[in-house]
Amino acid sequence: MMTAYNFSAGPAKLPEEVMLQAQNEFVDWNGQHSSVMEISHRSKAFLRVAEEAESDFRDLLTIPANYKVLFMHGGGRGQFAAVPLNLSAPEQCSTHIVTGSWSKGAVAESDKYNNAVVIAEATIKDGLKYVEPVKSDLQPDAAYCHFCPNETVDGIAFDWLPQVGSVPLVADMSSTILSQPLDIDKYGLIYAGAQKNIGPSGLSVVIVRDDLLGKAQAITPSFLDYSLQSQNDSMYNTPPTYSWYLAGLVFKWLKDKGGVNAIAAINDQKSALLYEAIDSSDFYNNPVHPDNRSKMNVPFTLANGELDSVFLEQAESAGLQALKGHRSVGGMRASIYNAMPLSGVQALVAFMKEFERKFG
Amino acid sequence: MMTAYNFSAGPAKLPEEVMLQAQNEFVDWNGQHSSVMEISHRSKAFLRVAEEAESDFRDLLTIPANYKVLFMHGGGRGQFAAVPLNLSAPEQCSTHIVTGSWSKGAVAESDKYNNAVVIAEATIKDGLKYVEPVKSDLQPDAAYCHFCPNETVDGIAFDWLPQVGSVPLVADMSSTILSQPLDIDKYGLIYAGAQKNIGPSGLSVVIVRDDLLGKAQAITPSFLDYSLQSQNDSMYNTPPTYSWYLAGLVFKWLKDKGGVNAIAAINDQKSALLYEAIDSSDFYNNPVHPDNRSKMNVPFTLANGELDSVFLEQAESAGLQALKGHRSVGGMRASIYNAMPLSGVQALVAFMKEFERKFG
Repeated sequence: MMTAYNFSAGPAKLPEEVMLQAQNEFVDWNGQHSSVMEISHRSKAFLRVAEEAESDFRDLLTIPANYKVLFMHGGGRGQFAAVPLNLSAPEQCSTHIVTGSWSKGAVAESDKYNNAVVIAEATIKDGLKYVEPVKSDLQPDAAYCHFCPNETVDGIAFDWLPQVGSVPLVADMSSTILSQPLDIDKYGLIYAGAQKNIGPSGLSVVIVRDDLLGKAQAITPSFLDYSLQSQNDSMYNTPPTYSWYLAGLVFKWLKDKGGVNAIAAINDQKSALLYEAIDSSDFYNNPVHPDNRSKMNVPFTLANGELDSVFLEQAESAGLQALKGHRSVGGMRASIYNAMPLSGVQALVAFMKEFERKFG
Repeated sequence: MMTAYNFSAGPAKLPEEVMLQAQNEFVDWNGQHSSVMEISHRSKAFLRVAEEAESDFRDLLTIPANYKVLFMHGGGRGQFAAVPLNLSAPEQCSTHIVTGSWSKGAVAESDKYNNAVVIAEATIKDGLKYVEPVKSDLQPDAAYCHFCPNETVDGIAFDWLPQVGSVPLVADMSSTILSQPLDIDKYGLIYAGAQKNIGPSGLSVVIVRDDLLGKAQAITPSFLDYSLQSQNDSMYNTPPTYSWYLAGLVFKWLKDKGGVNAIAAINDQKSALLYEAIDSSDFYNNPVHPDNRSKMNVPFTLANGELDSVFLEQAESAGLQALKGHRSVGGMRASIYNAMPLSGVQALVAFMKEFERKFG
């Protein structure tokens, strides 16, 4: 079989070892003559899966005991609604840092349930997209401050924490969770749609400080109510069990790899290699300021945009898949989450050099 | 490998042929060197999966063109909220027929978003749980009338349609969809959590008459908004793609089996065999009136309840799995959805007779 590398932004490539294990035990899991997706979420066997997944996830991110971990339905956009519904009253304000499509989408959804105020936005510096570190004493009574430290579509990231006094920080980490260590206790809440660094789509994972629970608006759909789900170990309703199981395998894989510190070093190496290839040539271009380049999603353009489709076709033929940029942005984008090995980025860089040699 | 039969109520057994195909193409689907769960929901290859699944589902149930089919997040309980949010204004009333745990749960959730009124409830007739056919002129202006024609926990079903004038009928068919033919045009909306007759948990399927769209309350979370999802072919947000794919395989399997008419005949045969075994003995008992016996979920008790745990242990050893009744009901329950072959029910009946011989 040809070696292929899948650069999809999400649903995205999962670790090969995880996929092979899941395939191997697909119809006869745990010696039960059934798939793990065919058994009750309340069976002892599945409860063990659920507990181990949570425990491994907590280990990986060193999550303190006063934070709950929830495995929920609905993906990132489900959380766009769940966050304001659970953390704020209708008359309260939430503050937002807008740096790309996702953080922008969160504002509109929040504003249905509270008073959403944008306190900072991405700008342009030296002709490149840039995010000025946020230090704001606006809205000190805000229920929370929402931001997205890695924008999947735009390839914009920042590694500082907004300085907003005692306002709880809420981060959409869909495309960056588990890619590097985190100081969980600096956050009020972190959420992530699973389909980038955790597992298949249809699952979202929420880390929430327990003093933020118990404030859900009366109109909160029960299955999105953090307190209800927390009281029921994320089984108030039937959870997406197969996705939860796969997430658990991914967590074990990451522990085996040495955890988030080890994977962060590889992620640094991968992204450095790719940005170096882009920067070392006038043929390729990345529109983001060096301070704000994403290590997970690397968008790039060709100096001659008419070659985009040729690039994508030839890349596909060479086994370099799903490199097309988001439809709202165009160009190319390589998503290089945890599951993408260094060899994938090396293959992409070699292809880029060869393509430039032919068409540059 | 021992022949095992899994009677789980949900997540439930899926067709063996489907599971083997999915296993076979798990890591290299469609010649793409990737799993179907690792590719973008907006890729051509996945769009084909999505369209075929919808088209096959429409064929199976002969869904008229003026009905939309949605593939959504959140399962049945997600729809408990989505239905009132999408179909009613806060000051409107919804009517409810309560025949078991699920239809009861829907009332409480509806009442958050409209004025939920119970117009009929299951009763007792001849000492057995019974549902009187509903003919009601109460609340003729109700936004909809909600009912659950098959209660998974209680094993109570009815095959008549509530006579409620022009009030749109909304049916929770989580545990009965695709098990028999339906006159879709008698309904305003049908929904089903996938994890019984469709696929793995985490997906819900909605069939909605298009004149009922466009009425969502302003507080509806966007990912639960039927109109938004319909306008975006159920891809307003990233859908649970792997569950959607598996649902599509189940639909093709069912078409190959001869469709819902053919499976309904087998379901009749399976349930008749099991009820006959229960009725022909004083050792076993089913608490539901013959008019209202479920063909999907068959609860039964032992005359001597102290033998329950022995029965369950020995059944498990004999490869008859997940027969424990719901924790709110106790006793035993055999869920015999489409994917359970006749041979599974035959094996269960043989075991029951042998168990009675030993302990009766």
